[in-house]
Amino acid sequence: MSTELDNSANENAKVDKNERHKQRQQKVKQQVDAKIEAAQIEKGVLMVITGNGKGKSTAGFGTVTRAVGHGQKAAVVQFIKGGWECGERNLLEKNGVDFHVMGTGFTWETQDREKDTAATLEAWQAAEKLLQDESINLVLLDELTYMVTYKYLDLQRVIDALNKRPAMQHVIITGRACHRDIIELADTVSEVQPTKHAFNAGVKAQLGFDY
Amino acid sequence: MSTELDNSANENAKVDKNERHKQRQQKVKQQVDAKIEAAQIEKGVLMVITGNGKGKSTAGFGTVTRAVGHGQKAAVVQFIKGGWECGERNLLEKNGVDFHVMGTGFTWETQDREKDTAATLEAWQAAEKLLQDESINLVLLDELTYMVTYKYLDLQRVIDALNKRPAMQHVIITGRACHRDIIELADTVSEVQPTKHAFNAGVKAQLGFDY
Repeated sequence: MSTELDNSANENAKVDKNERHKQRQQKVKQQVDAKIEAAQIEKGVLMVITGNGKGKSTAGFGTVTRAVGHGQKAAVVQFIKGGWECGERNLLEKNGVDFHVMGTGFTWETQDREKDTAATLEAWQAAEKLLQDESINLVLLDELTYMVTYKYLDLQRVIDALNKRPAMQHVIITGRACHRDIIELADTVSEVQPTKHAFNAGVKAQLGFDY
Repeated sequence: MSTELDNSANENAKVDKNERHKQRQQKVKQQVDAKIEAAQIEKGVLMVITGNGKGKSTAGFGTVTRAVGHGQKAAVVQFIKGGWECGERNLLEKNGVDFHVMGTGFTWETQDREKDTAATLEAWQAAEKLLQDESINLVLLDELTYMVTYKYLDLQRVIDALNKRPAMQHVIITGRACHRDIIELADTVSEVQPTKHAFNAGVKAQLGFDY
């Protein structure tokens, strides 16, 4: 008898818990729905992914994968090229993504300011063409921020090209320490913070995961 | 004559600037090289991408794209499915990525705790199988964090499966507010902070960019 009462009490408690959960979730749903209702503008979004954490370029490449998956046209300009083969390039280029890779390696590998400036300008000219091409839905300017930081590239020239791009074209800029004027101009800015990084614990960069 | 002197002074200043740049970059290169030299461990990395900013799932999918581009095997379990078609799934599934998508929609859409718990467990069982499969190089557990937060999934069960996985298998967990015990266990943790989001300025979620 007491077991039956206990069971009944437990059952009531469970119903209460489910009911409270349902009410909480209904409130969340109302808030989300209201925000979705309010957001009606369609436009090309300028997104900056900056900060010192891991995942900035991969977030850019993930968005390229997404766009291509919907049959859209995407293009990538990589402003820093490592000495290694790039996994995402292998797959995305095969699926129609236009890739431009800057002619020199890491800027701390070459240490030649004039050569790096020339290579940057060449890559930037490819970027400018993409930023004038209405047929391209998404342009990823991977690691562009460093080119502005090192003054290989004129900030105003970058801002002008971004401002003049087709109205529906999305652009993603990645890299550490993005210049505040580009952040100001951007619609969406994510800052990736490195809470922890395996590299600092002695784990080497591994093919397929880190490059 | 004074113009010639000026030119010569300018030329000297330019040489100095290039030399200083070169010295700075050499120092950076030495530091980077030393860190690369020190990092010799090869292992499956557990990476958590958390925080409230945009780019967590896309960073996960970008890494899947990278792995697949190198001919590696990757699998995805999506713990929250939107009502819409998923662009990255279209491309990645076509390229051999194993996809498991949880049977219900957003948890704030269903508002049914028992149904959501059952759906979570089903998706988690698929994840557990992947986490025992040595042939899979990378497992993306997209939006897993919410399942732990809502207590649809037992935290210890998640930690056990992560601990017992093949030594070389990489795992990426995405979602807001990742539980501190999973962060503790992880090798790499990135927190994506929302400095700015177009959605809050009235821009709607757009196909190819946001989903």
